[in-house]
Amino acid sequence: MKIAVVGMGIIGGSYCKAIKKYTNHYVVGINRSPLPLQKAFDCGAIDKIGTVEDLSDVDLIILGIYPAAAVEFVRANGDKIKKGAIVTDTSGIKSEICQSLVDLSHKHGFTFVGVHPMAGKEKNGFDVSEADLYKNASCIIVPCGADEKAVKTVADFNLSLGFGGIKITDPEEHDRMIAFTSQLPHVLACAYVLSPNCVNHKGFSAGSYRDVSRVANINAELWSELFLENKNPLITELDILIKNINSLTAAIKKGDKKEIMSLLEKGHKIKEGLGE
Amino acid sequence: MKIAVVGMGIIGGSYCKAIKKYTNHYVVGINRSPLPLQKAFDCGAIDKIGTVEDLSDVDLIILGIYPAAAVEFVRANGDKIKKGAIVTDTSGIKSEICQSLVDLSHKHGFTFVGVHPMAGKEKNGFDVSEADLYKNASCIIVPCGADEKAVKTVADFNLSLGFGGIKITDPEEHDRMIAFTSQLPHVLACAYVLSPNCVNHKGFSAGSYRDVSRVANINAELWSELFLENKNPLITELDILIKNINSLTAAIKKGDKKEIMSLLEKGHKIKEGLGE
Repeated sequence: MKIAVVGMGIIGGSYCKAIKKYTNHYVVGINRSPLPLQKAFDCGAIDKIGTVEDLSDVDLIILGIYPAAAVEFVRANGDKIKKGAIVTDTSGIKSEICQSLVDLSHKHGFTFVGVHPMAGKEKNGFDVSEADLYKNASCIIVPCGADEKAVKTVADFNLSLGFGGIKITDPEEHDRMIAFTSQLPHVLACAYVLSPNCVNHKGFSAGSYRDVSRVANINAELWSELFLENKNPLITELDILIKNINSLTAAIKKGDKKEIMSLLEKGHKIKEGLGE
Repeated sequence: MKIAVVGMGIIGGSYCKAIKKYTNHYVVGINRSPLPLQKAFDCGAIDKIGTVEDLSDVDLIILGIYPAAAVEFVRANGDKIKKGAIVTDTSGIKSEICQSLVDLSHKHGFTFVGVHPMAGKEKNGFDVSEADLYKNASCIIVPCGADEKAVKTVADFNLSLGFGGIKITDPEEHDRMIAFTSQLPHVLACAYVLSPNCVNHKGFSAGSYRDVSRVANINAELWSELFLENKNPLITELDILIKNINSLTAAIKKGDKKEIMSLLEKGHKIKEGLGE
């Protein structure tokens, strides 16, 4: 295939590197600023430094840019996309953007398949992208009405890059689950490091501190956009979490060991039941 | 030295294995139930299956048992401890138990030095103990009035087992910091996995879920004891955390992107300032 990757950040850059490492596809890179493109070309992650004019000649377009920017990009350049091409995004939210992209796909004669690669780092940009970022990660596919053949093409393509498995879902389930598995830990990490004791943790900390605080080194621009684009599912999870922390706090304040143990046992059983 | 390790769980067992791997000290194991002692002896982690009678003949006693049990053990057997011996605990809380152990040390003529090895696992028992559990971990020492020579002996001994560094502190600072670095993440992990979406996370999750939920596979008996023995510092941290989560939640509910970004930026700066 001829593939265009739009956006040379960690996500787009890692797609380019993985494609060149694991497949024989031809890759055109497209990016707003020229520097990451030049870097990508110099290290062999892309075959061509492209422009939106190249969209008329590629079979698959991967949007490695922020959710709202992805919709904007297709709105502005949809007429250049080859009829019958497949367009996938890489966004961490779906309900808010999928319908717009499906509408644009009908208007311009391409097929949209939503994709969310479940991988990332605490750092951003092409410099931290890597060919094996997606190794063994889950690839969530949100077909949004795309035909089976297109979905299979996208699934097989992603598996060929090293993803460990495919999860097919709809935008609502995706957003509800991601609010819990990804967005909530990011809110938590930031809330956690705001404790005045955080700056003095060295020598007093180990794995527990490291794990909860890891993603606090956050991209504030991206994540505030993601939180607002997935506002309702995230608020639902936040309310559940606050309620559960409050229950544990109340039991500790009361000195009620039986109640604390009962709540901890519940958590223990859930985690153990998952085989983790 | 002749060393007695009391308790053949993950902490005591790992001490035994580390001592035999990295030093030439002689190790006597003491445990309530005989099976872990036999296992420890069979794999060479201890030189002798001991009893409390052996306390009269050892230079260093390491208490690898729960905090309240450690005090109870010394209260019951303090008269058997050799004059001039050093006793260290391994407890995750200090204010609640150190004074009792210091009092007992004066009564019976030994030296107590508080120790908290900052290492552990989500699993318990001798079977998951390992010689390198303490490799590069921080060893917190709480002298509690012990003389410099005893503190140096304990520090050098722990460094010889692979610990990465020594942090000297007092019971109050220890407990305040541990409430933040260790106890709070354990409360959080349990509260987090109580979300109804948790059991369906597979395929939708990656590092963020894994990290926040890791310690939910908790030892409810031990941690409910630790939470209550460190009640006030932990409640202070819980109140701060709830306040910070509430601030972020309120900003998300209002759809106030500027406020969300400002709070995330604060977290980002703290984490970045720590070089993490």
